[in-house]
Amino acid sequence: MNKIECCFSPALYPYYADNEDSIVVVVDIFRATTTICTAFAAGAVSVRPVSSVQEAKKAKSEGQLVGAERNADKCDFADFGNSPYDYFPEKLRGKTLVFTSTNGTRAINAAAGASDIIIGAFVNLLAVADYCLQKNKNVVALCAGWKNRFNIEDTLFGGALADILTERGNFSASSDAANVAINLWKQAKYDIFDFLKNTEHVARLQKRFLDKDIKYCLDINKFNILPRYDKMLNIIKLYN
Amino acid sequence: MNKIECCFSPALYPYYADNEDSIVVVVDIFRATTTICTAFAAGAVSVRPVSSVQEAKKAKSEGQLVGAERNADKCDFADFGNSPYDYFPEKLRGKTLVFTSTNGTRAINAAAGASDIIIGAFVNLLAVADYCLQKNKNVVALCAGWKNRFNIEDTLFGGALADILTERGNFSASSDAANVAINLWKQAKYDIFDFLKNTEHVARLQKRFLDKDIKYCLDINKFNILPRYDKMLNIIKLYN
Repeated sequence: MNKIECCFSPALYPYYADNEDSIVVVVDIFRATTTICTAFAAGAVSVRPVSSVQEAKKAKSEGQLVGAERNADKCDFADFGNSPYDYFPEKLRGKTLVFTSTNGTRAINAAAGASDIIIGAFVNLLAVADYCLQKNKNVVALCAGWKNRFNIEDTLFGGALADILTERGNFSASSDAANVAINLWKQAKYDIFDFLKNTEHVARLQKRFLDKDIKYCLDINKFNILPRYDKMLNIIKLYN
Repeated sequence: MNKIECCFSPALYPYYADNEDSIVVVVDIFRATTTICTAFAAGAVSVRPVSSVQEAKKAKSEGQLVGAERNADKCDFADFGNSPYDYFPEKLRGKTLVFTSTNGTRAINAAAGASDIIIGAFVNLLAVADYCLQKNKNVVALCAGWKNRFNIEDTLFGGALADILTERGNFSASSDAANVAINLWKQAKYDIFDFLKNTEHVARLQKRFLDKDIKYCLDINKFNILPRYDKMLNIIKLYN
């Protein structure tokens, strides 16, 4: 029996990663992992995650295409921010994107020791689940959170994934964290937008009039794509 | 308006402690903080928390009274383990207890920078709430968890405390973590034992035939006492 774990923060990852052979699903619903999926759907060939604004700035000065966000706002030097609506096919097709965000790249770094890191969001939930079912290994949903704090939307994704894997595959959700994620998902799934309306990050986005981003990020299975991180090359590419 | 926060793990404490002036409520329902309350109820005058088994062993060799647990089992050299049923008035009255447990002392250490650290458990929930209402400052419920992993029982205590403070006092629970704690508490409060029956630590205790410990630890407001940590002296004493 495989385990599906839900890790609530990059800072907790060492306590949930008992096995380097696990699949780690990095999740940052609002908005990094949703946006990365969108960039691939718009035709990007790869995404290079960088940790710091300086690295992103340097890439921009070298003529690369750059997406960069801090504290929910687009960095002014960048081509794109963290809104999926920034990522048009006309600009992305055939390109490599250099990308940094407040929480998403931190989560990818936290999991750097894992052998198999994929990018998960509601927009590609079923593609993620299918991959996990096919590989049939332990899975850790690694929530990016907000500056290492717990958030509900990433946890809901962990619950949704755990719900599918335990229903359809040879998976058990035995930890308290995974069970709470499933509990919350079962409350939320019939109206995720309503369930999230009083949460921290929704408030942060609504203050910036980003209601349409929120709805976009909650659009389940919009894309049948699976971005996967190649740690040797430090690059995210589509799987298959 | 004061904030009530719920921090799910000692490893997350730096991201929830935005203010050294907050009250930090250290919570380890199964069983350290319940047992510390019990030791005071049995007449102990103080409890000295120590981090390592070596320190506890040294204290024992110096003739002190020692409670010591690792991985839910009593350390064989100690006078007591981590079961509240070990702590009889005949042995504790007027005494100082040296105490170490897998998770509880780790949580106290994590909060060491805070100016006001109190010991919370279901057995003294109302005493904790009254203290917070009276002090009227920000509060962080710091869940000891299990080896830095999230657990449900400590989170439920955080939710119960947040529920009381927001109902009766000038407190808001605005973070996602505090809101999830309240959400879980509202599901659990009519039958906490039933709600917890499939959780990690209940399984760990039941394997050791400790059903009576579990029920004891869920006995709300059994004691009207408030243990408070004096960091200058590294000692827990009753507040009055």
